[in-house]
Amino acid sequence: MVWDAWGIPAGHKPLSAQIRGLLTQVFGVSGDPVARRDEGEVPLRESALTPDRRDGLVEVVGADNVSADHRDRLRHAGGKSTPDLLRRRADGPQDAPDAIVFPADHRQVLAVLAYCAEHAVAVVPFGGGTSVVGGVDPVRGRFDAVIAVDLRRLDGVSEVDPISGMVTLGAGLTGPRAEELLRAQGLSLGHFPQSFEFATIGGFAATRSSGQASAGYGRFDDMVQRLKIATPTGTLELGRPPASAAGPDLRELFVGSEGALGVITEVTVRVHPVPETIAYQGWSFPDFETGAAALRSVVQAGAAPTVLRLSDEAETGINLARAGDIGGNPVSGCLAITTFEGTEAHVAARSAEAGALLAAAGGTALGETPAEEWEHGRFGAPYMRDALLDVGVLCETLETATTWANLAGLKAKVTAALTDSLAGQGTPPLVMCHISHTYPTGASLYFTIVAKQLDDPIAQWHTAKQAVGDAIVAGGGTITHHHAVGTDHRPWLPAEIGELGVRVLRAVKAELDPAGILNPGKLVP
Amino acid sequence: MVWDAWGIPAGHKPLSAQIRGLLTQVFGVSGDPVARRDEGEVPLRESALTPDRRDGLVEVVGADNVSADHRDRLRHAGGKSTPDLLRRRADGPQDAPDAIVFPADHRQVLAVLAYCAEHAVAVVPFGGGTSVVGGVDPVRGRFDAVIAVDLRRLDGVSEVDPISGMVTLGAGLTGPRAEELLRAQGLSLGHFPQSFEFATIGGFAATRSSGQASAGYGRFDDMVQRLKIATPTGTLELGRPPASAAGPDLRELFVGSEGALGVITEVTVRVHPVPETIAYQGWSFPDFETGAAALRSVVQAGAAPTVLRLSDEAETGINLARAGDIGGNPVSGCLAITTFEGTEAHVAARSAEAGALLAAAGGTALGETPAEEWEHGRFGAPYMRDALLDVGVLCETLETATTWANLAGLKAKVTAALTDSLAGQGTPPLVMCHISHTYPTGASLYFTIVAKQLDDPIAQWHTAKQAVGDAIVAGGGTITHHHAVGTDHRPWLPAEIGELGVRVLRAVKAELDPAGILNPGKLVP
Repeated sequence: MVWDAWGIPAGHKPLSAQIRGLLTQVFGVSGDPVARRDEGEVPLRESALTPDRRDGLVEVVGADNVSADHRDRLRHAGGKSTPDLLRRRADGPQDAPDAIVFPADHRQVLAVLAYCAEHAVAVVPFGGGTSVVGGVDPVRGRFDAVIAVDLRRLDGVSEVDPISGMVTLGAGLTGPRAEELLRAQGLSLGHFPQSFEFATIGGFAATRSSGQASAGYGRFDDMVQRLKIATPTGTLELGRPPASAAGPDLRELFVGSEGALGVITEVTVRVHPVPETIAYQGWSFPDFETGAAALRSVVQAGAAPTVLRLSDEAETGINLARAGDIGGNPVSGCLAITTFEGTEAHVAARSAEAGALLAAAGGTALGETPAEEWEHGRFGAPYMRDALLDVGVLCETLETATTWANLAGLKAKVTAALTDSLAGQGTPPLVMCHISHTYPTGASLYFTIVAKQLDDPIAQWHTAKQAVGDAIVAGGGTITHHHAVGTDHRPWLPAEIGELGVRVLRAVKAELDPAGILNPGKLVP
Repeated sequence: MVWDAWGIPAGHKPLSAQIRGLLTQVFGVSGDPVARRDEGEVPLRESALTPDRRDGLVEVVGADNVSADHRDRLRHAGGKSTPDLLRRRADGPQDAPDAIVFPADHRQVLAVLAYCAEHAVAVVPFGGGTSVVGGVDPVRGRFDAVIAVDLRRLDGVSEVDPISGMVTLGAGLTGPRAEELLRAQGLSLGHFPQSFEFATIGGFAATRSSGQASAGYGRFDDMVQRLKIATPTGTLELGRPPASAAGPDLRELFVGSEGALGVITEVTVRVHPVPETIAYQGWSFPDFETGAAALRSVVQAGAAPTVLRLSDEAETGINLARAGDIGGNPVSGCLAITTFEGTEAHVAARSAEAGALLAAAGGTALGETPAEEWEHGRFGAPYMRDALLDVGVLCETLETATTWANLAGLKAKVTAALTDSLAGQGTPPLVMCHISHTYPTGASLYFTIVAKQLDDPIAQWHTAKQAVGDAIVAGGGTITHHHAVGTDHRPWLPAEIGELGVRVLRAVKAELDPAGILNPGKLVP
């Protein structure tokens, strides 16, 4: 990925005339992008890794696999939240890890951690670098130096078991590479979060990622059957497929551990055959509450499609679910997307059952096109955000989840907190929302917020984020449904797990990482 | 429950002439039961609770709710494994908790724990007393006295949310009472383990219970949305429905915590509407491997019935799945049971899809009768065990789980270990097996073992259990799929989670229960 924006250069496209017109009309910005700095000219904080520490790490992984190169450091300088990207676009020196280490395998990760624990070097485990919560910030904590441990060389597939539908994947495999290797065996993982193109298997596990096909294939936590974890104290191998009653499920302590309790090096996941067929169907609902009740009826009946999404009126009106048509003719009501994957027989049975429920709940079938268009553009939104940031428009997303009974109330509270905070700063926002993940007991809410940037857009967003975080927790939502805690959500973790829960986390960390080198400043309050 | 056997007196029936005939033929026993001791005549270890400790507990819960009564102590003397029942049938004094405390609510449980931590009294949290792994044995550990904390007074239903399909249940509610209270609201939990009639909501959570309808409604761990836990250090409230990425899922540390990390006082569970209809269908497969592959095809296609079971040739031949007909005309092949619950439309769609897959995989539909008969007799097997023990026949069950690819291999190894060990002692067993819980990646294996008793049947079974435990772990199975660890499986826990995993468990316990009063000798090696 490029250092100061999402994705690859080819993904970045100028805004369409339609969108520029919309921005001028709504926010009074011209739509002309500002220039960004050349990577080579960006001043970086000097590396604090002493030559002897560097030599020590070289001894573990080899000289080719320790880098303090300007470009390497810049590309491991953090994640891709809007504040991250605004910080990179700002003048002045950038923070970055003092070196990057590229271990070859689990054994080398263990050795790197042992070395760093002994020599007081902080470690940031690094996968795809797609965190939007400050999860890979180069925080030194109380240590003199911090290194990023980039897991890209842990990129193997092993123990392929098509009978049980299980494979073991190296933590450093990206989404597309994992799918490519699996497809060669007729298998698929089916995990497609928006970060899919860049994020890694280890990252998915470390952050409790959830993909767009979660209604069909589950969250990534559901897929994880077994984990191999390197800690400063040794190796953990957890999870006994398919299920066990042998005490607490310790695997669930490390799914979502965000590099603070250990480094996930291998993940054994549930996979399925590449689907025989995929059916697409868009739906229209008169309003969000009707649509949400329809989604609920399908999920609670055990008839969930593979993908099941619902955009609210604002998101539907601006065509955000159909990236190619943003700013085009406004669409009324609320758009829902369904896809069905599997055998011909399964897709036929399931789409008939789900379709009947959606229709009975007030939905109007729109045919295949809206769902196909959504799938075509589904990884594109982060690129759009960069284009908006470049023209002086603030754009960020956040997500939560709550029970079905509390969904409309929480949506209203979150929208009000965002609107009040940003309007109070003189920049009334557009707030759009969709449901992208559904469960028998509730659903996620994913918000996209667009407003005119102030002179200090980082402070502008920080104010709004504080307000909305408090509103989410007070409103019975979770501070994050699938983006993890990192640094940004840490203040709200005690509200999720209580002070005693925090003590439990700290006790586990103290046992495994007594020196406290693992990902300082993340997750654990 | 009666003190020296399973269940209530009315459940105990003499063996049928058919079964007695079978036992004489196979094991050479007469089939005449020995008399059991009267409850009042059983000598008990004297209560070690000093009067001042008793007074201290009375101050917390009131005089009516502390008992050192002979009958109460006897009925809290442990669980219902075959060794437990054999021990109770043996002469000599029985072990028992020194007193039973019946707290009224969460606050009183907290206060009891605080008192016991301060005064060095061990605590055994007690639900239905149905443990078959020594999970509620009155172990004093290093303490002078041990009390059972019976949670039966925590029997409320609160926060009923039919929209989200969630309710909060007191930990002391039994299965039938919880279903009764839910049915009054048109709801059902759908958790029907064999212990259903006596076990409690808190016990289901504390042991990672799994019910006979797990293919449709999930394991109890899947149902748990939120837990309230009393510990000597304070209260934990964990779980944010429907899902969260806010760090490790600490709830999963306490599902399966077996009273060793805290006392579960409230469980918020997923529920569903009472099904409109239930369809029953029995199937016959030529052999176990064909049947297992058929079950796999249904589960992996996402078309699982609500109940999905398969008996092996031995279990099918002896009609164990149809309790009314044991010893009757032998049936060839392998019997499978399916039931489908839900709306008329869902049941029709799902049973058609699953039926087509089972037929395509070599199954022959047998109509409704075998499945209805199975459902009718499904809680009866433990009573049969008592009748067998009374006539000098050893009968015990055990269970494991593994991946589909490893299923046949593990089944063979477990059967061989049991057969070799018991035949080596001169008592060749009948070993029967069924699959009762299926997952996309694997299934459970539940074994029933019957053999002639030796003079010391506890030692006889202990030898077999050691052999089979080792074989399970070496063969890639879990030491328990739904019976928990307790005292009996503790030696094998390090094989499941590793020595470092054990250290993590100990660190959590040390944080929450620094005095170590909670359920000594269980779970944590």
